[in-house]
Amino acid sequence: MDLSTSEQAAITSGGDFWHTSPVESAGLPAVTVTDGPHGVRMQATGGDLLAGVPATCFPPAVASASTWDPELLRRMGEALGDECRAQDVAVLLGPGVNLKRTPLGGRNFEYFSEDPILTGMLATEWVRGLQSRGVGASLKHFAVNSQETERMRISADVDERTLREMYLRAFQRVVTRAQPWTVMCAYNRVNGVYASEHHWLLTEVLRGEWGFEGLVVSDWGAVVDRVKAVAAGLDLTMPGPDADGDAALVAAVGSGDLDPALLRQSAERVREMIVKAGKRPAGGYDAEAHHALAREIAGRAIVLLKNEGDLLPLGSSSTLAVIGEFARTPRYQGGGSSQITPTRLDDALTEITAAAGGEVRFAAGYTVRGDADEGLLAEAVAVAKAADVAIVFAGSVHETEGADRTSIDLPATQVALIERVAAANPRTVVVLSNGAVLATRPWDEKVPALVEGWLLGQAGGSAVADVLFGRVNPSGRLAETIPVKLADHPSHLDFPGEHGHVRYGEGLHVGYRGFDARGQEVAYPFGFGLSYTTFGYGAARATATATGVEVRVPVTNTGARDGREVVQVYVSLPGSRVRRAPRELKAFASVPVEGGDTADVVLTVDRDDLAYWDIRLGRWIVEGGEYLIEVGASSRDVRASVTVHVAGDPDRVPLTTESSVGEWFADPRGAEVLGAAFAEAAGDGPMSAMTANPEMLMMLASLPLARLASFPGSPLSAGDLEKLVAAANY
Amino acid sequence: MDLSTSEQAAITSGGDFWHTSPVESAGLPAVTVTDGPHGVRMQATGGDLLAGVPATCFPPAVASASTWDPELLRRMGEALGDECRAQDVAVLLGPGVNLKRTPLGGRNFEYFSEDPILTGMLATEWVRGLQSRGVGASLKHFAVNSQETERMRISADVDERTLREMYLRAFQRVVTRAQPWTVMCAYNRVNGVYASEHHWLLTEVLRGEWGFEGLVVSDWGAVVDRVKAVAAGLDLTMPGPDADGDAALVAAVGSGDLDPALLRQSAERVREMIVKAGKRPAGGYDAEAHHALAREIAGRAIVLLKNEGDLLPLGSSSTLAVIGEFARTPRYQGGGSSQITPTRLDDALTEITAAAGGEVRFAAGYTVRGDADEGLLAEAVAVAKAADVAIVFAGSVHETEGADRTSIDLPATQVALIERVAAANPRTVVVLSNGAVLATRPWDEKVPALVEGWLLGQAGGSAVADVLFGRVNPSGRLAETIPVKLADHPSHLDFPGEHGHVRYGEGLHVGYRGFDARGQEVAYPFGFGLSYTTFGYGAARATATATGVEVRVPVTNTGARDGREVVQVYVSLPGSRVRRAPRELKAFASVPVEGGDTADVVLTVDRDDLAYWDIRLGRWIVEGGEYLIEVGASSRDVRASVTVHVAGDPDRVPLTTESSVGEWFADPRGAEVLGAAFAEAAGDGPMSAMTANPEMLMMLASLPLARLASFPGSPLSAGDLEKLVAAANY
Repeated sequence: MDLSTSEQAAITSGGDFWHTSPVESAGLPAVTVTDGPHGVRMQATGGDLLAGVPATCFPPAVASASTWDPELLRRMGEALGDECRAQDVAVLLGPGVNLKRTPLGGRNFEYFSEDPILTGMLATEWVRGLQSRGVGASLKHFAVNSQETERMRISADVDERTLREMYLRAFQRVVTRAQPWTVMCAYNRVNGVYASEHHWLLTEVLRGEWGFEGLVVSDWGAVVDRVKAVAAGLDLTMPGPDADGDAALVAAVGSGDLDPALLRQSAERVREMIVKAGKRPAGGYDAEAHHALAREIAGRAIVLLKNEGDLLPLGSSSTLAVIGEFARTPRYQGGGSSQITPTRLDDALTEITAAAGGEVRFAAGYTVRGDADEGLLAEAVAVAKAADVAIVFAGSVHETEGADRTSIDLPATQVALIERVAAANPRTVVVLSNGAVLATRPWDEKVPALVEGWLLGQAGGSAVADVLFGRVNPSGRLAETIPVKLADHPSHLDFPGEHGHVRYGEGLHVGYRGFDARGQEVAYPFGFGLSYTTFGYGAARATATATGVEVRVPVTNTGARDGREVVQVYVSLPGSRVRRAPRELKAFASVPVEGGDTADVVLTVDRDDLAYWDIRLGRWIVEGGEYLIEVGASSRDVRASVTVHVAGDPDRVPLTTESSVGEWFADPRGAEVLGAAFAEAAGDGPMSAMTANPEMLMMLASLPLARLASFPGSPLSAGDLEKLVAAANY
Repeated sequence: MDLSTSEQAAITSGGDFWHTSPVESAGLPAVTVTDGPHGVRMQATGGDLLAGVPATCFPPAVASASTWDPELLRRMGEALGDECRAQDVAVLLGPGVNLKRTPLGGRNFEYFSEDPILTGMLATEWVRGLQSRGVGASLKHFAVNSQETERMRISADVDERTLREMYLRAFQRVVTRAQPWTVMCAYNRVNGVYASEHHWLLTEVLRGEWGFEGLVVSDWGAVVDRVKAVAAGLDLTMPGPDADGDAALVAAVGSGDLDPALLRQSAERVREMIVKAGKRPAGGYDAEAHHALAREIAGRAIVLLKNEGDLLPLGSSSTLAVIGEFARTPRYQGGGSSQITPTRLDDALTEITAAAGGEVRFAAGYTVRGDADEGLLAEAVAVAKAADVAIVFAGSVHETEGADRTSIDLPATQVALIERVAAANPRTVVVLSNGAVLATRPWDEKVPALVEGWLLGQAGGSAVADVLFGRVNPSGRLAETIPVKLADHPSHLDFPGEHGHVRYGEGLHVGYRGFDARGQEVAYPFGFGLSYTTFGYGAARATATATGVEVRVPVTNTGARDGREVVQVYVSLPGSRVRRAPRELKAFASVPVEGGDTADVVLTVDRDDLAYWDIRLGRWIVEGGEYLIEVGASSRDVRASVTVHVAGDPDRVPLTTESSVGEWFADPRGAEVLGAAFAEAAGDGPMSAMTANPEMLMMLASLPLARLASFPGSPLSAGDLEKLVAAANY
């Protein structure tokens, strides 16, 4: 690398909003990086920052995650890679793997799940698919960027175990298994330190522990101080140019405030990325094929929440009332940087009309802004009354990057619409369009069928018709819990924080983990989703292997219609030494099973995924013991369970003079050594009376050994301590 | 002060377990400090550490707090002061004002409440009463000592606002209003730093902000490092002697590692305390009068939770079944350092037998250890069946310092006993004895009357009889919420922590604040308690004054029987800028009202108690606005409400270059200055297109001004920033 210091500084900031800085002397061109994650959003010339040239708008992550199918995500990644090639894009800014800590998160539609394993498995395949095309991914937003409120500076205050096991876990999985070209640092602070200046995150953990080989790019505007950022391990600041920052870097190298090797290394990483990007072949893509893929994924993403009396799928001869402006004007993506100008756009009304054998009548019910007057409502009721089945499209009016929501309720006008339509026609189906959880209680109790349609991308309209008419047998599953009410949510007392800090008070108990730990009722549990057929589970078997646990379970399609079952494996360790959620998802498979057939499903739990982070030892520990393996159709629908013995990692914590009397006695060697010392002591002070009496000893259990030794009349002296420690840890 | 450095060191540690070190050269005797808080526990010679000479066992704090009567607490303090004089005790180790964060806390019986205002008001009067006798109090355990698990080193990880408003608030109140002679530092760590080494707590806050004039004594064994402790502001290490520590102090002064002024100051504070203690007159006390006071307080502490069909008070002519070993062998105090050897001990069985006009038969039902066999149960059922009324005594078997509980359930054998007795005799009264909350659901639904008897001290047996027979009309109120189940509790996901850390994840939402914020059902709410009469509330009036809010409400005893109503004032600020619980207790009064009479109750909310702690400004702020004043008979039984305008404190946060665009526009002057700058800018880049468009501006709202200026095409340049800041903050 023969760049000068000032060239090094220049190449570590952008050349403009969407390009790296070219270095002509070194033959390094500017390469394009642009927003994703569910489409290629190339900035259109002359528009504002959010205008893009047409590209396929695939289903946003809220929907694609509901497929629970990594294979589909890989295919989406491949298609996106092809579109990047066609647009000369080097790096697509995705996937977003932040955990959905709260249903109010403004970017939830861009994120996958409240579960880190599900998130990580899906995102890994997305990255593999994209990068198989020679286009780089940007794993974002690293880390703990789970809200929009005060997003540029909020400090996510979160303990290390929670950080490791929940908020970093998907990042770790994707980095170690798919090596994304880039990782994007988040805007926010983590425990008081900006992510862009977080040496522990960007260097110690990401590179040191996980072996990340790519470059760290900033979120747009996330860098506060270029020198601190480079020192922490951030390589590329976006956007640019940033002459002041470049100069500050040069000055810091000159003054010795910044190790020149760090700047050189960052510049080298940017150079490597540019060189790597130069190797991808150009190419076009088949827009129709991509639309078809978007439709396939969308169909697989739809979650059938309720279907009393098998109202769905619709017969082709019914007369239908289609109600709700969203049937005509689809809500199919969220606002902000991920917003795509689609190549085409299906609407449900057209697709339903095309699929229906009988008459289809439409009533808007509400305006595109969500307003309604009595005229709109009355018209909808009249249309519903005259039909065999009424299909009401409802949903959130607006979800966007930059702002968290303040409620999970449907607009009151839409609730009124649903209730009046359902009263007029008991055969009412509700189809929701929403980027994040909406409360369904109590209005869902009044309708026999409920279809969760998320934001489905440009082919959502046809995908909804596919499911309503049974051309697709629904197999989507909730990647996030639908609570009875917002106040029930584990995050409720600690969101969105204030004055620059948000406490992650529920700790490990994110999403279903928290609902389960409190034994709370939910509206629809994590992992839930119905099918037009039914599945039966046989007995599960579990076998421990060197690399984890293999789980086998026969799953039978007990109906006549072909379908897919998402088989889920939840794991717990009853009696664990550490706090754990009642059950944690560790493996899953989306399995096609023909009507009447049985599939022998094999699922693998990686041993790594059984580990907890031990803050005393500073490492992952698989605790030995009898693990409970629960196989189910949702987190609250366990169909088979089995226990399996897993051998533990070495995890003895050495005894010290600050270990408590209780800890000494809990350790076999410690108990022997300390018991002997107590027995030998012939003191007659009140302390000795206590140590001789097992009940009294209980009172002392929490006393560190050094404190006991300092007490008057103690059976131990300060001089004994080091001998005892040596004897206990021999 | 003419002590040598080594004398200074020696006097800052104890002379033995229960005495300070004498310094003969300076004429300073050893003075006695001993455990409280609800009795004077003088170490008996020759026994173990927990054996004491006889003293009045007053009701532990769990009970005395349920009186909601500071005046009673003052009288208890006076009586304890008299007993201290009689025993030559200089300092009594109490009161314990730690907040009951969880119902599982092992020392909950020694603490007052889950509310800091109730705790602070009661403890203030206790200290005033005690110190009026020339005996010192020791306000403990400073701070955040709300659990026993890992108590010697657990770090209570708690954000500053929660610390200030919840966990320190009672300490602050007692220090500023009653100047206890001593404050006792806690065992635990607070945000990673031992309380005994916590300079911010012991010096900056306690002395600097609150003006504490006394000395800080360690909890017994809480000092890990004498030098660090003295440097932090700890004066007296207990117990002693501690020759090693004394030597370490002398060495640290010699080497310059410890400022000699700090050691001199600590020694001087110990000397002042000894001198002050020397001034108290000797004296005796009237044990019978103290027993009568203990009985009065106990009677006022009993909370009547349920009384269907006015089953209570008992008529004198009924035949009674008294069931449960606790009626004969009272549970009247907890285990550990507060354990008193009582001067006498009343049991309920004897007192009920004496008070009853008819026959009284007893069945043990279970053993003193809580076990039961079919024989015991069957006997109890037979006895119950033959009586007019059955009174079942039930409760916790063991509660002690040193160990948190693991459940809030009654022992299963006692639940079975209650259910079988209630089935045999529908006129069943349950009387509970317990040091902390017990779950009552679902068994309480099967009995018509439920009496919460806590741990009532040595006169509890007669006090229970007083209430059962109506000699005392119950007026006790819950100082802690009784949840439906443990998992509902706000602390549930974050207790007891592990590996040295416990996250105070519910933040401000301790106790009823959390139940209210989540809209959860509870079994019996905070502040709840029935009477044998009924009270009606008139309209409330509220007047803002310079020092707070004066609330007036007429309260009418609408029955014939004289009684007491505990009138409670809860305050909230709808639309507050900061997170607040739905309602917070700010004032209360225990008011005697004769049957048919009306009392005009006047309650004063101190302005200080309306303040929240602003972490940006680092000070208490009373936010201006329309406060909602709710006057009620419990936290969930609001009888009258009124709003009052309270003028706010100055609280403008100066705008900086790190303030967000949204914050600039939310500030009137900022909006003017930044709006003008945007209008002036004539850029044509994508950023300018955004700043010209109000909707797009929303996307930028969270962007700090400095970050906006660094963007390409920004309407601002870095050079503009300081001018804008100056103009906005002129």
